[in-house]
Parts: sequence; structure tokens; C-alpha cells
Amino acid sequence: MTMPTPEFLHKLADAADRETLARFRKPLDTSSKPKDGYRFDPVTEADREAERVMRELISAEFPDHSVLGEEYGLSGTGTFQWVLDPIDGTRPFLLGIPVWATLIGFTQEGRAASGMMSQPVTRERFWADQTGSWLETSAGKTPLRSSAKTEMAEAILHTNSPEGVKRNKDVNFDGLDAAVKMTRYGGECYAFAMLAAGQIDLCLEYNLQPYDIVPLIPVIQAAGGVVTTLDGGRAEDGGRVLASANMELHRAALKILLGQA
Amino acid sequence: MTMPTPEFLHKLADAADRETLARFRKPLDTSSKPKDGYRFDPVTEADREAERVMRELISAEFPDHSVLGEEYGLSGTGTFQWVLDPIDGTRPFLLGIPVWATLIGFTQEGRAASGMMSQPVTRERFWADQTGSWLETSAGKTPLRSSAKTEMAEAILHTNSPEGVKRNKDVNFDGLDAAVKMTRYGGECYAFAMLAAGQIDLCLEYNLQPYDIVPLIPVIQAAGGVVTTLDGGRAEDGGRVLASANMELHRAALKILLGQA
Repeated sequence: MTMPTPEFLHKLADAADRETLARFRKPLDTSSKPKDGYRFDPVTEADREAERVMRELISAEFPDHSVLGEEYGLSGTGTFQWVLDPIDGTRPFLLGIPVWATLIGFTQEGRAASGMMSQPVTRERFWADQTGSWLETSAGKTPLRSSAKTEMAEAILHTNSPEGVKRNKDVNFDGLDAAVKMTRYGGECYAFAMLAAGQIDLCLEYNLQPYDIVPLIPVIQAAGGVVTTLDGGRAEDGGRVLASANMELHRAALKILLGQA
Repeated sequence: MTMPTPEFLHKLADAADRETLARFRKPLDTSSKPKDGYRFDPVTEADREAERVMRELISAEFPDHSVLGEEYGLSGTGTFQWVLDPIDGTRPFLLGIPVWATLIGFTQEGRAASGMMSQPVTRERFWADQTGSWLETSAGKTPLRSSAKTEMAEAILHTNSPEGVKRNKDVNFDGLDAAVKMTRYGGECYAFAMLAAGQIDLCLEYNLQPYDIVPLIPVIQAAGGVVTTLDGGRAEDGGRVLASANMELHRAALKILLGQA
């Protein structure tokens, strides 16, 4: 077997959940890891342990796959790669707010093929493979479907950080903010899952790492959404990324952000 | 019986949860109710139905108590009053992000005496009465205790909306933002619960209604926190409100906000 099954994705998420939940809202040994001008980016023991247990399971099951993780970097080479963010949203994790998640992505020749987002406080798994995009809870599995909304004036926009907006003044955020119905902040990866679920229409981020977005690309796309960099390229490498509920909204939003509308 | 028991608070929350959860992430019949310059403030069927069922239970159990609710206003007069926000955080409710909650407060002669915040997606109840401040889940009841942190440079600040910051330039938010370790947005009422839980150290809001804060006052205070208006008065009437993990931090933050530090 080369391609992972949904069962294996769940197995990874189960292992990560045990490590993250055990340390959630507990006193943490945090160490600051400043990057990209953010003044605080905690790396927690939960982060490291969750990635470690997922790496163990992957190397046992798929010894020839490479792994790229937030905490331990890149190991291995080849066609198939796992892309792991053990805790996406370390800040809300520290604050006790359940919009963080474990992100598990799988790529084939650099293209996101399947992915899972696990939020263990809400006990939700958002995941996608070739069968579609799904929200799975103890109550079962329901398909995710992004919004068909195409009117910008009706759209709901999310970006995680007002600081990101301030530091990227060459992007016309204010124009998009003025064009949409509502703008919200602070939802982290959870906002992308809600885009796949049809609740949010546009998600803009300025400074994503591959492990921040690769696991979410299949969830967004298989739900009907669109996700690219601001120059319209594939989003697997991160950077400045826009996700939209549908292609019409995506094109219109990109035009505004790039000052072409 | 005049004072409500925790069991009765849970009974109200159970009834509200049924109405809110049944409509969460479902297509909603929303109507816009603009107020205070926010361009979007949806009132959902869930909001109305959740308040309605709580009012029914209250009037059956405590016919002589008055009720102040977000949706149906004030009814009755007297020493004892219920203060209800059926969905605090209607925006995250619409976006599918589980930081909204049902807030249930109880006042005696205008002073918050007990309160509960129910978040049915995470299945958490944060509540307080004369026995203390508690987080209750299916796993049981654990005491809430606010942080003992007194160093401003280590503090975590939350305010819900960057728009609120922009519209209240006479408050020195930038000074406080520069003094703390981290500032976060978008957590709604959930941020106050996390202050009671020791995760967040300062919560600043500019435009609270009584039903936004009365139910949370006992939860914050019985956990060791402090909550006042920016002029240092009681917070039951809402307005500009600061909650802090402890009195030392509260005094220092107020000084900065008022330009006295």
C-alpha cells in the first residue's frame, strides 16, 4: 500500500490528539521562537510530542515516505511526502480557545492528495481524499460543501491577524474588507475548515508555511472551494494564500486584492 | 426557593443548547439589525428560540423574577432579575466557529450573583455561584482559577474586534498592546471564560450590553479575577469593560488605558 487510507489518517490524528489534549490548558514549558517579525510564537511540548508520535506511525507504515513537519523539519525524499503541523494555532492553544488543530497532509509529487484537520476539544475531524471532503464526528460523516455565494457584498471574509494586514500594505485588504459583508479575525486553520463547510466565503493569509496549508488544500478543493497564492499559482508552498468558496468569488477577490478592480 | 440552583442553570442551558445546536451550521433566516455602527449584526432564529425557551422555564419556576434578554428586552420588576444572552457571538455562530455561547446571568438588587456560559459544541459549561467558579463537562467539575501573573510584559490581552479599537481612539489600546506579550482577537465571550480559567490575563471590550457581561461577572470574580468599567465602577451595566486576572494587573492596565501610566 502506498496511498494512505482514511483509517490511517484517523490513526495519526488519534495519536496526536492524545498528546495535545493531555497538555491543553495545563501549565506549559514554552520557549519563544520568534520568526517573521511576530513577537511571540510559542513552541510547546504538545507540539513536539504530537509530531513525534505521528512520525513514528508514518515511518513504521510507510518507511519510504518523506516527512515535512513544523517541529522537526524535513526527513527523507521521494514521490510521497507527509506534511504535518502538530498544532496549527499555538497561540489559541495557549489561550485555551479551541480553534487550533492538528493538520495532517499527504502529497504526491508535490501536490496535496489527501488531508485531515483534527480538533479534539470539539471532537471534529475535517478530512478529504479522492472520495470527497468530510466532517466526521462521533455522530458520523457528513459531506462538506463550500458556499455557492458569488455576490461579494454578501461574502464573509476571514484573515487571522490584523498584524498581518498591517505588515502587507501592498495587498489591498482594505478594498476587500470594504467590499464584503463582514470580516472576522482569529479563527486560525478552523476558518479554512469553515470555508469548506460553506460558512465562510474567503480566507486570506499572508505568511503560510507549507504545513499550514497543504493538509487543508484537499479539504477545500474537494468541497468545491478554490485555493491559490495571490499570483494565482498552486498553494502547496504557502506564502500569500487566498481560499474562496468558488471560482467566481476567487477571481473577483484576487482582482481587488491586487488592485486590478 | 428564591435563589436558583446550579441544576436550574443547567436546565436553562440544556433548553437553550437544543435550540442553538439544532440550527448551528444550518441555513438560517437572518435579518440584519444594525446597531452602534457595526455593519452586520445578525439575529437568528436560534437566538430568539433559545431565549424563548429559557423565559418559559424561568416564568414557570420563578414567576416573580424579572427577565432582561437580548432578544425580548425587559419584562417584570423586582429584586431578582435574570439576564440572558441566548447567543453571545452571533457572528462566530454564523461562521461556524465555536466561540459563541449561551449566557445566563442572575442578579440580586442589580448585582450579579450567579451565572453560566454554555458552549454546546465543546460541551462545556463555565459557571459560578456562591460555591465558586467551575468548568463542568461530561468528565466532571473542575475549579476555575485566574492567573496570578502580575508582569504586564508576560500578560496575554484579548479584545474581540479591531474595529472596536479603531472606534475608541480615546482609550490607549496601543499602549496596552505594546506593553503585553501578546494580543489576540475574535474570541468573544469565550475569552472571558479563558480569563477565569487562567489562560488569558486581560479582556478589554468597548461596547458591552448588560447581557454580554452580567452572566460572566460571577465566573470571573469567583475565579479570582477582577472586572470593572474603565472608570473603575461595577460592570453590570456594560459599556467599556476591562476584566483582569488579578487586581494588580487590573490597576496597571487601567492606568495605561486611561493614559495615566
